Amino acid sequence: MITRRDCLARDSADPLASLRAQFAMAGADAEGVIYLDGNSLGALPAATGDRIKAVVESEWGVGLIRSWNSAGWIDLGQRIADKIATLIGAAPGEVVVADSTSVNLYKVLSAALAIQKTRPARAAVVSERTNFPTDLYIADTLARAHGLELVLAETDEIPALLDERVAVLMLTHVNYRTGRMHRMADITEAAHAAGAVVVWDLAHSAGALPVDLNGADADFAVGCGYKYLNGGPGAPAFAWAHARHLAWMDQQQWRQPLAGWLGHAAPFAFTPDYRPGAGMARFICGTPPMLSLAALECGVDTLLAAEPFGGIAAIRDKSIALTELFIALVESHCAGHELTLVTPRAAGARGSQASFAHATGGYQVMQALIARGVIGDFRAPDILRFGFTPLYTRFVDVWDAVAQLEEVMTSGEWREPRFNIRAAVT
Amino acid sequence: MITRRDCLARDSADPLASLRAQFAMAGADAEGVIYLDGNSLGALPAATGDRIKAVVESEWGVGLIRSWNSAGWIDLGQRIADKIATLIGAAPGEVVVADSTSVNLYKVLSAALAIQKTRPARAAVVSERTNFPTDLYIADTLARAHGLELVLAETDEIPALLDERVAVLMLTHVNYRTGRMHRMADITEAAHAAGAVVVWDLAHSAGALPVDLNGADADFAVGCGYKYLNGGPGAPAFAWAHARHLAWMDQQQWRQPLAGWLGHAAPFAFTPDYRPGAGMARFICGTPPMLSLAALECGVDTLLAAEPFGGIAAIRDKSIALTELFIALVESHCAGHELTLVTPRAAGARGSQASFAHATGGYQVMQALIARGVIGDFRAPDILRFGFTPLYTRFVDVWDAVAQLEEVMTSGEWREPRFNIRAAVT
Repeated sequence: MITRRDCLARDSADPLASLRAQFAMAGADAEGVIYLDGNSLGALPAATGDRIKAVVESEWGVGLIRSWNSAGWIDLGQRIADKIATLIGAAPGEVVVADSTSVNLYKVLSAALAIQKTRPARAAVVSERTNFPTDLYIADTLARAHGLELVLAETDEIPALLDERVAVLMLTHVNYRTGRMHRMADITEAAHAAGAVVVWDLAHSAGALPVDLNGADADFAVGCGYKYLNGGPGAPAFAWAHARHLAWMDQQQWRQPLAGWLGHAAPFAFTPDYRPGAGMARFICGTPPMLSLAALECGVDTLLAAEPFGGIAAIRDKSIALTELFIALVESHCAGHELTLVTPRAAGARGSQASFAHATGGYQVMQALIARGVIGDFRAPDILRFGFTPLYTRFVDVWDAVAQLEEVMTSGEWREPRFNIRAAVT
Repeated sequence: MITRRDCLARDSADPLASLRAQFAMAGADAEGVIYLDGNSLGALPAATGDRIKAVVESEWGVGLIRSWNSAGWIDLGQRIADKIATLIGAAPGEVVVADSTSVNLYKVLSAALAIQKTRPARAAVVSERTNFPTDLYIADTLARAHGLELVLAETDEIPALLDERVAVLMLTHVNYRTGRMHRMADITEAAHAAGAVVVWDLAHSAGALPVDLNGADADFAVGCGYKYLNGGPGAPAFAWAHARHLAWMDQQQWRQPLAGWLGHAAPFAFTPDYRPGAGMARFICGTPPMLSLAALECGVDTLLAAEPFGGIAAIRDKSIALTELFIALVESHCAGHELTLVTPRAAGARGSQASFAHATGGYQVMQALIARGVIGDFRAPDILRFGFTPLYTRFVDVWDAVAQLEEVMTSGEWREPRFNIRAAVT
């Protein structure tokens, strides 16, 4: 039987515990909030406020246009990209920060399809039916535009689909609803054996667990800046391509569909003809949203700060411990309340979240829980989703969250009509 | 002979003079900076610092994910879009704020090409060779993808090119280098007479002068948030489509290529099949960069604040007066120094900038001028570009800027080697 005291003891022994001070949690803590939604929007780093104040008041306000040089705005995106590279097994220069995850997916998927174009017998882009919707919309659009078909399958059906008809396999490393994690290296190997290239969406894995794109010999990847990278709401996203594909693009002078002046080989020549920048540089389109970009760097820095404490491997260890604890506590304290674990029970097969289905009242249960200050989120039709972010989630938070969930369930308060009012965002 | 005292008198009589207090100019003023580059990056509104601080520290830091509802993040983009609509002759709901100008151009140009697809004899997208490079790259990519050709012409050749072979005419309302302004209504009418649809880029006109998209019966438009809208470096951009095209898109259930969950008819259903939101809503892809978006609203508000003082018409009057003054002063004070006006002399044919060519030393002259605190910019190969932003540019600023330019030219200091060191951004 695990006690709250046990959880406090684990926090005391946690090698990452000191890293929580990197976040501005005082306001939420004072409200009694337990935040288990860092997989949707990472918490605010303590450094971000001052950094943004400087960007706004000094760099923009006084430096004005000069700040592109004097404040280094022109180099900021690449500096952040090279930091992100260290978290995902990429080399410096292989990652760019730009636009949104979806827009970047459009770019890299276009590259993947261009590379496979010489093989017309390959008529399918394969993905999971449960992938994040925008990924599927983007893939569907591009597949049609290239005369291919988007084939959607259940997760377990994917390996059997990998044959000579598949041009591209597009997967999200960790599923946004269930938290199920793909074995990146194994699936990539199987896809390559079938002659397909693989595009990975790292939205729910970058910054949450070790990702080794080059180690897995992956082809392309995109990811999100505002979840586990703590970059702030709508932070710019990133994109990566394997060096072999960058070489191909350079050789072909291949241009991505959203080619823009800032990804031109000579951006300030402003020529009417596009000549792509070398390697990943071509994936830049235009001016990045500088305030949001500056905030992203503060977020990424919270992860790099874990390096002396074991880095992303230590984060993963704690993440597994947190999700294990949560699952164990929910299943013991809330037994009999129709909460069914949908996240894989095997730690190696899940990301840094734990999701439970509640068939009849998922939305209401989450609303009741949020009213008690425990913030997770709901994903239709029936998923209660809880994200665990080892840099600031404590073991005692897990205990307290489950204690509140137990109250919600045993009191039956979630059935009250006030918890069934649909807000715009849930 | 115009004197500095005359300029001060004009500032005293300027009905818009009080609006300069809306901007945080104290730092730049204290440095003796005269800022004539608001057409590249608008100045910082005084309200932006506090607003961003609240978004970061309170909404993100304490509200966390709840701020999508509690702080109205979900509605912010549309609220700003409806404000921008009042500046460009659009109706509420006809504008969206999203992504970048370039990415939005990709979307609306895709719509224009889809609408013209039923007319296969139309094989050309026509634009100006001197259009902003990214616009041309995007148009080239899409034209090729649709089996059409991008035809580039000199400005004066455009009318003669408008015939039954033209699918789309894509123009930037005010040219980024020369400041030359197209007659939107006339050109649109001529294009329509030829059966073409017209896409306008308002990057250098929205917020600078009256734009009347519906009055001109235009088809599509995009524009930039960080120039005359004062939204901050890399602020999100906007897009517009005429109601007749929105009706067609609704009827066809047409989807734009960067379709995403937030532009879905039911965003929170997270279904694998895309069903476009009604009208312009489909042009949204995903989560906007919220810090940069919040700053954009403060910028747009500085323009709406001019409403009691005559609004955009009064801004235009002052803009013309400022550019007239600048041109007159440069041509009288700097005569004989090889500065050639490239902006149209007729006020009705230019935007809110004045550009001079200097054949042998354009870059160095601008660097020498910036070293003296007068900030314009240089555009290759030979253009000195000066932007005038009536909300904060004073008549005396124009006088003082030209006085410095005169010093640079008469002293010959621009020939010093230190002014020929190329920085990353010029």
